[in-house]
Amino acid sequence: MNGADALVKTLLAAGVDTCFANPGTSEMHFVAALDREPAMACVLCLFEGVATGAADGYARMADKPAATLLHLGPGLANGLANLHNAKRARTPIVNIVGDHATYHRVHDAPLTADVEGTARPYSDWVRTARTAHDVGPDGAAAVAAALQPPGRIATLILPADTAWSDSARGPAAPEPLEAPRPVPTERVEAMAALLRGGEPCALLITGKGLRAHGLETAARIAAATGCRIMAPVNNGRIERGAGRVPIDRLPYPVDEAVAYLAGLRHLILVGAPAPAIFFAYPGKPSLPTPPDCGIHTLAAPGDDTVAALEALEAALGARSQAMEVVRRNPAPPPQGASITLERLADSVRALLPDSAILIDEGISASATFYAGLREAPAHDWLHLTGGSIGIGLPLATGAAIACRNRKVVCLQADGSALYTVQALWTMARENLDVTTLIFDNRTYATLIGELAKVGAGNAGRRALDMMSLDRPAIGWAELARSFGVEGTRVDTLDGFNAAFRSAMADRGPKLIAVAV
Amino acid sequence: MNGADALVKTLLAAGVDTCFANPGTSEMHFVAALDREPAMACVLCLFEGVATGAADGYARMADKPAATLLHLGPGLANGLANLHNAKRARTPIVNIVGDHATYHRVHDAPLTADVEGTARPYSDWVRTARTAHDVGPDGAAAVAAALQPPGRIATLILPADTAWSDSARGPAAPEPLEAPRPVPTERVEAMAALLRGGEPCALLITGKGLRAHGLETAARIAAATGCRIMAPVNNGRIERGAGRVPIDRLPYPVDEAVAYLAGLRHLILVGAPAPAIFFAYPGKPSLPTPPDCGIHTLAAPGDDTVAALEALEAALGARSQAMEVVRRNPAPPPQGASITLERLADSVRALLPDSAILIDEGISASATFYAGLREAPAHDWLHLTGGSIGIGLPLATGAAIACRNRKVVCLQADGSALYTVQALWTMARENLDVTTLIFDNRTYATLIGELAKVGAGNAGRRALDMMSLDRPAIGWAELARSFGVEGTRVDTLDGFNAAFRSAMADRGPKLIAVAV
Repeated sequence: MNGADALVKTLLAAGVDTCFANPGTSEMHFVAALDREPAMACVLCLFEGVATGAADGYARMADKPAATLLHLGPGLANGLANLHNAKRARTPIVNIVGDHATYHRVHDAPLTADVEGTARPYSDWVRTARTAHDVGPDGAAAVAAALQPPGRIATLILPADTAWSDSARGPAAPEPLEAPRPVPTERVEAMAALLRGGEPCALLITGKGLRAHGLETAARIAAATGCRIMAPVNNGRIERGAGRVPIDRLPYPVDEAVAYLAGLRHLILVGAPAPAIFFAYPGKPSLPTPPDCGIHTLAAPGDDTVAALEALEAALGARSQAMEVVRRNPAPPPQGASITLERLADSVRALLPDSAILIDEGISASATFYAGLREAPAHDWLHLTGGSIGIGLPLATGAAIACRNRKVVCLQADGSALYTVQALWTMARENLDVTTLIFDNRTYATLIGELAKVGAGNAGRRALDMMSLDRPAIGWAELARSFGVEGTRVDTLDGFNAAFRSAMADRGPKLIAVAV
Repeated sequence: MNGADALVKTLLAAGVDTCFANPGTSEMHFVAALDREPAMACVLCLFEGVATGAADGYARMADKPAATLLHLGPGLANGLANLHNAKRARTPIVNIVGDHATYHRVHDAPLTADVEGTARPYSDWVRTARTAHDVGPDGAAAVAAALQPPGRIATLILPADTAWSDSARGPAAPEPLEAPRPVPTERVEAMAALLRGGEPCALLITGKGLRAHGLETAARIAAATGCRIMAPVNNGRIERGAGRVPIDRLPYPVDEAVAYLAGLRHLILVGAPAPAIFFAYPGKPSLPTPPDCGIHTLAAPGDDTVAALEALEAALGARSQAMEVVRRNPAPPPQGASITLERLADSVRALLPDSAILIDEGISASATFYAGLREAPAHDWLHLTGGSIGIGLPLATGAAIACRNRKVVCLQADGSALYTVQALWTMARENLDVTTLIFDNRTYATLIGELAKVGAGNAGRRALDMMSLDRPAIGWAELARSFGVEGTRVDTLDGFNAAFRSAMADRGPKLIAVAV
């Protein structure tokens, strides 16, 4: 058995059975190994950022890592932006990168690059296999590293000769997994005391705390103590909609974020880092929290967030506390020609099936949709977590592969969609049940607001030209069809309602570009 | 004047007047500065890899650097693959990357990443501006670093507050430029002695040595001494075609490369590194040169290659040596239905206008076209230099902006085109005179050969599936039109001849997908 076979078998033994691949020459033995291991599902992507973004979407929904398969330094480089987003979502990914044969690197052939150096800024764990014998244990270590709570990017670099040479040790058994760290009782007691103190408090929750059970626990704590519960601006996955506890997110705009937290005396972190404003603006604060607001940690990332919430609930005697969940709004979709983001979101709310997965790279449309779908049927909501645009279509691709029986709806800004538009082809190839809504406003709309906010003055023609996608306009329906995805463009709400209703009733990939 | 204005003025003073941009919030002051500096041409790209690849193509043709404008760590990451190619082409690029305000980075906002760490593996020079006062001098230093012979990647990181704050020092004057290093007389004499020695010798030439004058000088040396002249597999720019000295490149396949150099006793490097095989293969050598072949350096990269050739010519008394140049083949294009790569290349040879720029990301079609266009009208040939696919369309974009009066023909493999297909939009927006030929073979054709060559055995269905782009087929004509480029698909040679003839007679961006 060669190293490539040993690696594929090791991954399968550790439960990693899906690989998002954009291979090259140095990965050919891994590809050949797939013929011998039908249990490994290998999904071809036309660009590496699709592969890493899909691995992120897959793991957020499957609660286990996928592997990637990328080609040397530049191939890895193409995948880094979405690894950044995955790292910020704390998603486990086993990121496999081929490299030149160990003895070949010294010759500095044209595609030689510093693969470890490329990986390091966007990985939590990096290792280069030294020999074929090590590949099995290295693979097992990579999976364990990826699964270290709350979830990490583990990059395993595989020189070609470690894949093609005979592996004396063969595949390795899975390594024992690290459990989330328990939260010390004293910390729970201290937070309970704060919450009982009567000063304005809030829990800032992310990670597993945003699943239904964690949110219910938090809601009982809030009901018992009067504290607020909230989520960071962007989160890996939120279970929400009808029957779920509603949770607001911190606003993105600095003034709104500051206003949202005004008067708060204690912010208690539950799996979330201390919040920071997304960008700095001249004369505006970097932090949204009031200067006299204490920031306390109940659970750090990697701690057992849900157990911490349960312990806090118990310490507060809140287990039988009544709490409210969202009721479904049964109103039909609004009608007529006029499209606003609010009306569009209300249509989606009305027409969404149960158990959908919402992918949110709506950017300037995001907040309106998050608010507008609050009373939709129960659904999962996946954010752009790291601010690097170009994750929506890949994330939808990966989520749809993880959950083949659920409808995926991708809320997608037009400018952002263009970074990784090649994902549409993988959606067609895999016949994924993804309906993508393109918000076709033909601008980098966020930037026009940002230009003013950074105090750069009024934009002249040349500056505005750098934010306009209208010359020429992208033909979204044609673009979708060129990749094998059914595409349509609508410019009335009635048109949208018909197209979206039809997409929800059908299966398979669709794209609806909406003139907004 | 703020830092952004100081930077734009500094770049202009140093002759950098073109910027390929994909900006975000942290670059808004740079964008605003464009309204005040109409001399700076700013070209919007929908993806960062388009911006860096276009900057490469621009500089290869303009013989001066362009600037880029990228957004933080992940935006830079998206541009790295084509920076890798540019670095291997030894192209000067002033790579400008925005970052968070200096005081904001400590808060680890979601888009925070290690920008310097991201840049370093793909840059020759990296600096982060510390204050707005430094931005002018930093900009001048970046241009000088990029222009250090033979050409380098200089990355200047611009924290947002260094762009928006007042710059007491304002713009900086250009720094003195370093000249190419002269080659010592003893080295020239030693090479002349080798060449006179009668053993089989070859000059391996790249860089400026591949322009018309350098090649003519090399040809006279070859005629006088009987040595061979050759170029590496891939080169930044070769002046060739009718009236030019023909030069063969080292073959890409390992067996052919070894055969090509068999019997050689002395390889003299003229601006080129010692050759290495592109990938390692089990049981095959890493180097194409015979074991007993001496490798000697006439001119290292950064040395004055052309002056070294002239000195060698003088030392050999070869200045009046007769030498042969290519004569144009006036045959009309072949006709009929059948398309082969050879017939296609012969059609391009027959129909190409004078002074065209050929962009070669033909991959599996590349060698056939390089040979087939030998007797075409005089043209420049730009290779994929670093092996990172996805540079063809961006390179064509940048070359067309550098040379608005010349026809650009992009020889483009289908799989590779999909990495940076967004470049088509910039071609449409800028109305660039680029005709792209897509070799629509619906596979990663090179990989099918590579799978066998690495000894991975016969590919089964699942392995082949990772190299097939036929499920679904890409609709190239629709894809081009969706980005505003006139697109067509042909499946006969007569159809190709008609479409290509029409494209050569017309101006503006076209795409012709050819079923091969």
